[in-house]
Amino acid sequence: MKVEERLAVLGLVLPPPVQAPLGVRLPFTPVRIVGDRAFVSGHGPQLPDGSIAGPFGRVGADVTVEEAYVSARLTALSMLGSLQRAVGDLDRVVWARVFGMVASASGFDRQPSVINGFSDLILDLYGDAGAHARSAVGMAELPFGLPVEIEAEVVIVG
Amino acid sequence: MKVEERLAVLGLVLPPPVQAPLGVRLPFTPVRIVGDRAFVSGHGPQLPDGSIAGPFGRVGADVTVEEAYVSARLTALSMLGSLQRAVGDLDRVVWARVFGMVASASGFDRQPSVINGFSDLILDLYGDAGAHARSAVGMAELPFGLPVEIEAEVVIVG
Amino acid sequence: MKVEERLAVLGLVLPPPVQAPLGVRLPFTPVRIVGDRAFVSGHGPQLPDGSIAGPFGRVGADVTVEEAYVSARLTALSMLGSLQRAVGDLDRVVWARVFGMVASASGFDRQPSVINGFSDLILDLYGDAGAHARSAVGMAELPFGLPVEIEAEVVIVG
Repeated sequence: MKVEERLAVLGLVLPPPVQAPLGVRLPFTPVRIVGDRAFVSGHGPQLPDGSIAGPFGRVGADVTVEEAYVSARLTALSMLGSLQRAVGDLDRVVWARVFGMVASASGFDRQPSVINGFSDLILDLYGDAGAHARSAVGMAELPFGLPVEIEAEVVIVG
Repeated sequence: MKVEERLAVLGLVLPPPVQAPLGVRLPFTPVRIVGDRAFVSGHGPQLPDGSIAGPFGRVGADVTVEEAYVSARLTALSMLGSLQRAVGDLDRVVWARVFGMVASASGFDRQPSVINGFSDLILDLYGDAGAHARSAVGMAELPFGLPVEIEAEVVIVG
Repeated sequence: MKVEERLAVLGLVLPPPVQAPLGVRLPFTPVRIVGDRAFVSGHGPQLPDGSIAGPFGRVGADVTVEEAYVSARLTALSMLGSLQRAVGDLDRVVWARVFGMVASASGFDRQPSVINGFSDLILDLYGDAGAHARSAVGMAELPFGLPVEIEAEVVIVG
């Protein structure tokens, strides 16, 4: 089954691009393709309507592990939306590297349980092509008070 | 216009390498080239004379966003100096990935506004070849009390 | 001398894989190989018996620089174990990028002195093929209270 079909079966909708404030040109590219490699900018959780998804704050204090798992899953959908716009066909993506960042309260050390929300969905959608190396680490702060931000590198085939 | 010419027009000077303390051999390479890819070590802000540029400390407490924007711009010049020594001709560089780290005071979440100091200059100098994927994130601490450290990956062409 | 022989001369033993809890399938891959590139997941310090090596906590408060240097060296051995299982022959590895993360107490800024424990061993074992670009930075938190976690990218030759 194609990735897009699997998304439909799961009832999942990819969000549109994050909107920059009117008149602002963002000085970076969501997905930068050079040769057969695609470098994916740090993404955060987005709702299907394109807005940034809450909750906000640090995991382990303001946000629970279960909430942050959902944030990481919504981050995967945001990134898949960017990849679809950049590559066209999500089945041309082979996953390589995932760098999962979790805004962490002092003493919170379950970052892997949070980033699993991203990895579990990618593996479910992609199978073997979704296998990826990963780090899941604790940040002092993330932009806009996001609890999760994830960067990736993928390879384009076909 | 070549990148070196554009730097001259802007009155910008690339600094020499960061000096290691006498007798110390640094156990890493500023720019590691493997095939057509160049991995660029984390760089910090440097002045034209090669010294590390202040201010020091965390953005949002010790350092303002405006000061840190300049630090990020000076980090771009430091990295361009390293790339020029490693590659020879800066026009052979195509930008791919920028990982922007900001030492962040508690509650500071405007990391993108800081790292724009790097991205704005690269886009100004390189145009389309300067497009890059990016993350801009908040660190607990950076070496030597730097407010900004930036790592990158570029592709070598020609 | 081959890398495996040099390890033996130094009396160093590569640990087995980190054991996941019974019945748990980790949703990521220690070493993801795509073409001639290998993306290496974040690794932490392991003892030769495969267990996670202490001490735990933040460098600069709970853990000294000297202890954390050893943690970084034990992280290199853990990663070499993963690379040996994934690639077969460690001499086929050419080092490219090392991203060294240090759980850092407030005000601790000697991350490079910690990550040298990793870099010094890789350079000792690999010589020129061990040269790598590097960042060494301070994290708020790392999984399981680890003082050090290191991610890498290498190229596979031969």
